[in-house]
Amino acid sequence: MSNSELIAELEVERDRRVLSIQSHVVHGYAGNKCSVFPLQLHGFEVDFINSVQFSNHAGYEHVKGQKLTEKELEELYEGLMLNKINNYTHVLTGYCGNVTFLQKIADVIRDLKQKDPNTTFVCDPVMGDNGRYYTPKELMPVYRDTIIPLADVLTPNAFELGELTGIAIETEKDCLRAVDILHESGVQTIVVTSGVTGAQTPESLRCYASVKGDATYRFTFPRLIGQFVGTGE
Amino acid sequence: MSNSELIAELEVERDRRVLSIQSHVVHGYAGNKCSVFPLQLHGFEVDFINSVQFSNHAGYEHVKGQKLTEKELEELYEGLMLNKINNYTHVLTGYCGNVTFLQKIADVIRDLKQKDPNTTFVCDPVMGDNGRYYTPKELMPVYRDTIIPLADVLTPNAFELGELTGIAIETEKDCLRAVDILHESGVQTIVVTSGVTGAQTPESLRCYASVKGDATYRFTFPRLIGQFVGTGE
Repeated sequence: MSNSELIAELEVERDRRVLSIQSHVVHGYAGNKCSVFPLQLHGFEVDFINSVQFSNHAGYEHVKGQKLTEKELEELYEGLMLNKINNYTHVLTGYCGNVTFLQKIADVIRDLKQKDPNTTFVCDPVMGDNGRYYTPKELMPVYRDTIIPLADVLTPNAFELGELTGIAIETEKDCLRAVDILHESGVQTIVVTSGVTGAQTPESLRCYASVKGDATYRFTFPRLIGQFVGTGE
Repeated sequence: MSNSELIAELEVERDRRVLSIQSHVVHGYAGNKCSVFPLQLHGFEVDFINSVQFSNHAGYEHVKGQKLTEKELEELYEGLMLNKINNYTHVLTGYCGNVTFLQKIADVIRDLKQKDPNTTFVCDPVMGDNGRYYTPKELMPVYRDTIIPLADVLTPNAFELGELTGIAIETEKDCLRAVDILHESGVQTIVVTSGVTGAQTPESLRCYASVKGDATYRFTFPRLIGQFVGTGE
């Protein structure tokens, strides 16, 4: 391998260092258990912090396990800082059940962005779906006022988009207006990960994505009959 | 896909369900962070319990993080039991810093073997290397008297082999005598993962493996000058 080939390869590696702060489930797939393997398969170097360690995801009758506290998250990040190995091009976050833990995640992201303003923060603002919260409602203002101003890529479903912007998302027009509000908060890329009721038919689902100052995308999917959980992952 | 092809595929899947109880490091590779990806890549379904969550492995100046207690391990396994998803063909264990945690691991393995006597237990009896312990010495009798009688595959280094059998491993003869003692305790397959001093030269390393009632293997490797840690992984 020539010197310039080696340098080119190291550049690619520098472009693909992810910190993923998500759940771990021993059995099955959710959070980090779901995200890490495909990222590694695509050549990303993935450092992952498990925000919980549960026996399985919440779709089972029983769930046992432990939650990481914000103090413990701080300790782990401190270890990375002290060894000067907190060098990431991307940060990825998902489900978070607790306001103080989410605020600590914001501290980590602020620190990483201060070190390198090009760090891309990909945030799934998990709060609820189909008109109801399955996390504490108190997370919403923290996402809206603290997390979203830091996010580069946001993947709300239609319910979360509505809560974050105060707009009931029923039509394509509602959806695109809400997406614009998030762009104005500084989010570059938004993917709405569930269908927009008024824009679709009994046979199809319709989702949207938008890149600030660039294109808006409309996706039409055939509808599968049934109730599916965790499809965002 | 025909019905018989589908059944054949499901059979393969039933043959490859691993429970791995090892360390997690956020950055770098050790324990589960090291084992899970290659197993998944080879088509194993890997459920993993993280016995610790540390910022990085012990080769760095600073290490921060948390340890799972035996009570927490019990809770996680209870979740798997209650949901009847504790179905494994293989169990894999590595570094364990604590006697009561190791005894709890033995309980889990006994339970899995009671459910299915064909469950293969692959055990790396991590205790120390190069003549010294880097775990509490009190682990040794637990490995010798409780864990090893349950193990199907054991991967001690020469130091661990010596401690477990009370034989100082200096020559090939010492090594094979110690390996036979472990076979007599019921271990089917033994791989000695470090060189046997008296059997090698300044230019080469020599390791051994043995399958009970079958072949014994002698491996000669060229020696690389330098000190390398974590090479067993």
